[in-house]
Amino acid sequence: MMRDDMTRVINVDLGDRSYKVKVGSGLVAGAGALVEGLGYRLVVMVTDTNVSALYAGALTESLRSSGVDVFTVEVPAGEQHKTLEVASGLIDEILGHKPPVDRRTLVVALGGGVVGDMAGFLAAIVLRGLNWLQCPTSLLADVDASTGGKTGVDHAAGKNLVGAFHQPLGVMIDVDVLRTLPVAELANGMAECVKHAVIRDAGLLDYIAANADNLMSVSGDQKLGFKEDVMVELIARNVSIKSSVVSEDELETGVRADLNYGHTIGHALEAASDFTGLGHGEAVSLGMVAENRIASCRGLLPSDRAGRVESVLDSLGLPVRRGGYDPEAVWNIMQHDKKMLDGKTRMVLPSDTGSVKIYDDIKEEEVLDAVEFLGKERRA
Amino acid sequence: MMRDDMTRVINVDLGDRSYKVKVGSGLVAGAGALVEGLGYRLVVMVTDTNVSALYAGALTESLRSSGVDVFTVEVPAGEQHKTLEVASGLIDEILGHKPPVDRRTLVVALGGGVVGDMAGFLAAIVLRGLNWLQCPTSLLADVDASTGGKTGVDHAAGKNLVGAFHQPLGVMIDVDVLRTLPVAELANGMAECVKHAVIRDAGLLDYIAANADNLMSVSGDQKLGFKEDVMVELIARNVSIKSSVVSEDELETGVRADLNYGHTIGHALEAASDFTGLGHGEAVSLGMVAENRIASCRGLLPSDRAGRVESVLDSLGLPVRRGGYDPEAVWNIMQHDKKMLDGKTRMVLPSDTGSVKIYDDIKEEEVLDAVEFLGKERRA
Repeated sequence: MMRDDMTRVINVDLGDRSYKVKVGSGLVAGAGALVEGLGYRLVVMVTDTNVSALYAGALTESLRSSGVDVFTVEVPAGEQHKTLEVASGLIDEILGHKPPVDRRTLVVALGGGVVGDMAGFLAAIVLRGLNWLQCPTSLLADVDASTGGKTGVDHAAGKNLVGAFHQPLGVMIDVDVLRTLPVAELANGMAECVKHAVIRDAGLLDYIAANADNLMSVSGDQKLGFKEDVMVELIARNVSIKSSVVSEDELETGVRADLNYGHTIGHALEAASDFTGLGHGEAVSLGMVAENRIASCRGLLPSDRAGRVESVLDSLGLPVRRGGYDPEAVWNIMQHDKKMLDGKTRMVLPSDTGSVKIYDDIKEEEVLDAVEFLGKERRA
Repeated sequence: MMRDDMTRVINVDLGDRSYKVKVGSGLVAGAGALVEGLGYRLVVMVTDTNVSALYAGALTESLRSSGVDVFTVEVPAGEQHKTLEVASGLIDEILGHKPPVDRRTLVVALGGGVVGDMAGFLAAIVLRGLNWLQCPTSLLADVDASTGGKTGVDHAAGKNLVGAFHQPLGVMIDVDVLRTLPVAELANGMAECVKHAVIRDAGLLDYIAANADNLMSVSGDQKLGFKEDVMVELIARNVSIKSSVVSEDELETGVRADLNYGHTIGHALEAASDFTGLGHGEAVSLGMVAENRIASCRGLLPSDRAGRVESVLDSLGLPVRRGGYDPEAVWNIMQHDKKMLDGKTRMVLPSDTGSVKIYDDIKEEEVLDAVEFLGKERRA
C-alpha cells in the first residue's frame, strides 16, 4: 500500500526537462496508477537478473492493471555487463518486439545504478529518444544516479565513456525494496550521503550521526531493519541536494563537479584495487578521509571537522583508514582520470561541513602524504 | 579562397542550441580559421572512403594550420554501413586515441548524409556528448540532413531507429565540393528542394524552374557545371525553409512532419524496389507526383499546380511517371511505416504550392489509384 502521509516529492528543476522524484513506501505496487492516463501503450521494463526475481513481478502486475502491456528485458547483474555490446543486444530485443515500440512506449528501469545507466541509455537512443521512468532499488542509486540524467555504458578505455544526458520522466524511490539490499550495498549509498552533507548541508551530517543505528540495523531474518520514516527522510534530503546541484549545472560544466568530492582519490584507490578488493562506498569513504587530510594540511579544514566526518563514516561501518596502498601508484592512476584538465589534478576540498571549493593546484606530495595518512592509526 | 561576398549565413534558432549554417565557396579551405579560437585541441574527422580521397586532405591541412590536431576515422561508403556495429568499431578507434579525447575535442563530419548521421551519433554519445561541426558534401545533405540535428544509425528493424537529436555547433556548406558529385546524386538533392518549395515557398519553385539549366549542367570533364551563385542561393533558400520548420518543432511532434511530403508513398516505392532500383530522389519525385494525385482527386490541389510541379521535376531529370509497381504491395508496405499513428496512414497533401496540411484519413483506394496513375502516360 502506498502511504501518502510519508511520501516526499522533490522537484528537479530543469526547465522543459523538469521532473519529480517521489520517495516513499509501497510505490512499486502503486506504479500502475502513476502511469495510467499518460497515454503509454507499452512498457519496456529493463531490470537485472537479481532484481527481476524479487520485484519485477509486482511492478509488472501493477503496470498491467493500469492497462499497459509490459515487456521485460534483462541485463545480466554486475557492472562488467554495462557495455555497448550488451546494450546492442538489448536494442535488438526491444526493436524486435511485436507490435513495434513507438512514441507511446515508456522505458522503466527497475534496478540499481547499472540498470539505471543502461536503461536510460537505451531510452536515449532507441527511436532517437523515448521517455523513461526510474525505479532505483539500491540506496546508492536512490541518492546518486537516480537524479541528474546521466546515462551510459562503460568502455575498455574507461567507465561511463559512452552515453547521453537523458532526463527521466520521473523517479520513484520505494524504500521497501531496500529491505533485501546487502548491508555492504547500503554502506555504498551511505558514503554518498556523507559526501552530500560535506559539500552542501552540515545539518544532514548531524541527522546521519543521530540516526546511524536506525539506518544501519539488520533484523533477525538478515533483512535490513532501518526505520522507514528515517530512511525516507534521509533519501529525500539527499535527492534535494543532488537535485539543486544538477539544476544549477545540468551538463557538468561547473558546480556539478563538487559531487566529485571524495572521488578523485577514491576512484584511484578503486583502480589500484583493480575494482575488486574495495567497494565503491568504501573507496569514497577513504577518498573523503584522504582529501580531508589535504584540506587540513592546507589549513582549509579544521581538524575537529575532519574528525567528525571520520566518526560518522565509522559509525556507518565505512572504513576510514586502510594501509597497503602504494602512494606513487595511486598518484599515477590519478594522472589518467577523465576529470583531469590541461594536465592538472583537480580536487574538491572542504573548508567546513557544507562548504567546498575546486582546486586545480593539487601537488604530488600532498597526494602521497594523504595516501600514507590512510595507513596510519586513527586517534579517536 | 573563401569569397565572403557570396557567403550566406542562416541562423537555426533553437534557444541555447542555436547555430549557424554557412553556405559559400572555398569554405573547406577556410575551416581552420573558423575553428581557431574556439579552444579545441583535437578534431576527430569522420568521413567515408569516397570523400576521404577527395577532400579530407584539404580540410585536415586547414584545421592543422589553425593549431588543432586532426585524427581521421572512416566509415565505409554506403548506407549499408550505417549500423550500430560500425558505430561501435568507430567508438573503439576514437576512445583508443592517445592523447585521449576530452571536452576539447570537436567531431567534424565530412561527407554525405550517411557520414553526417553517423558522425552526429558518435558526437552524441562519446563522453555523453561532444560538439560537432558538419561539412556536408552532397546536395541532399546540404539541403536536408545538415539542418535539424537528427543523428543515428539503421537497424534490421528499420532505418534510423537508433540515434539521438544532437544539434551541431555549426554547418559549413561548400558548393565547391559538389563539382565532383555524380549527377544522379545532385538530382536526389533537387527532389528535396522541390519538396521544400511545395510545402513552404512558391517563389522557390519559380527560382528552380528558371534556373534548372544553370543547376543541372555537366561540363566537359564530367564535373558538374552549375553556376556557383545560383547553387549558393538555392541551398541557402532551402536551408532557411528547413531551419524555420525545425525551429518551430525541433523534436518532430508537429509541423516538422510536413517535411514528409512525398515521402510516405516515396519510401514505400523505395522499399518496393528493395532500395536498389530506385534512387531516393527518384522515389521522392514519384512520391510527390502520387501524393499530388491524391490531393487533386480530393479537390485540394488544382491540376495546373500539380502539372507545374511535374514540369519542374522533369526539367531536373527526375522521373514523374513509372510503371511496374503493384499498388497493393505499395499500400501494404505503407502499413508498416513508423510514421503510422494508431493504425492510420498519415500523408502531407498540398492545396497550393507553398501550402500543405497533414491528413490522417488516407484510404487504400486513393493510394491504389495514385500508384496506378504513376504508370500512365503523362500529358504534357
